[in-house]
Amino acid sequence: MRTMQGLQKVQLKRGHFVDTPDVGTQLSTFRQTIDNIDAALIHMLAERFRCTDQVGVLKAKHQLPAVDKGRERRQYERLTRLAEEANLDPGFVEKLMQFVISEVVQRHRQIAAVEQTTNTNQADTP
Amino acid sequence: MRTMQGLQKVQLKRGHFVDTPDVGTQLSTFRQTIDNIDAALIHMLAERFRCTDQVGVLKAKHQLPAVDKGRERRQYERLTRLAEEANLDPGFVEKLMQFVISEVVQRHRQIAAVEQTTNTNQADTP
Repeated sequence: MRTMQGLQKVQLKRGHFVDTPDVGTQLSTFRQTIDNIDAALIHMLAERFRCTDQVGVLKAKHQLPAVDKGRERRQYERLTRLAEEANLDPGFVEKLMQFVISEVVQRHRQIAAVEQTTNTNQADTP
Repeated sequence: MRTMQGLQKVQLKRGHFVDTPDVGTQLSTFRQTIDNIDAALIHMLAERFRCTDQVGVLKAKHQLPAVDKGRERRQYERLTRLAEEANLDPGFVEKLMQFVISEVVQRHRQIAAVEQTTNTNQADTP
């Protein structure tokens, strides 16, 4: 039973009727929340890359390696614990973070290449 | 030059010295921010799955298909725009969201299977 306001009449056990959102309205409400969370995720990720890019510049300037295996291991251990606490599949979180971290490492290598070119050009200046 | 407080003396152009964090301290500061962002990402993702699981239950109850191509297309268009605004590679964001959405669809199928089993058992009850 569907009304104009996206509500449907639901009959309770004792014979009373209550208005509850119909399926389309419920779906739309959930999707608005999902869209808001996605916008937050994108902006969080953008801030994460702004931060890891600064790490990349620091590493390039001081000739530190792009990959730090010890740091990565500690990150995964912490993420696994956080995933379990949040009732998320740690395997899924690990794969997702592997994907993010591989993008970070790629960006670090690009930053290192730019930094090296800049230094070479400065050294060439008479 | 490194001091006890994780600071290094940096000589300015006019010969003055200022204390700035040394490389290790700077790296550690960035990593604390990254770790905080990761915790936020995990919790945002957990909330997203809580919400998509409810969508899964709704879809299963009303026999709606697990995949909605129109909705997915609109999501990707919006995410691409958000990624560009946030100065992120839209290709990277698309791949990341494909990974998340494929997990969502898998969970929806599991929910639908459980819902079907429950309905069958209820129908079997004399």
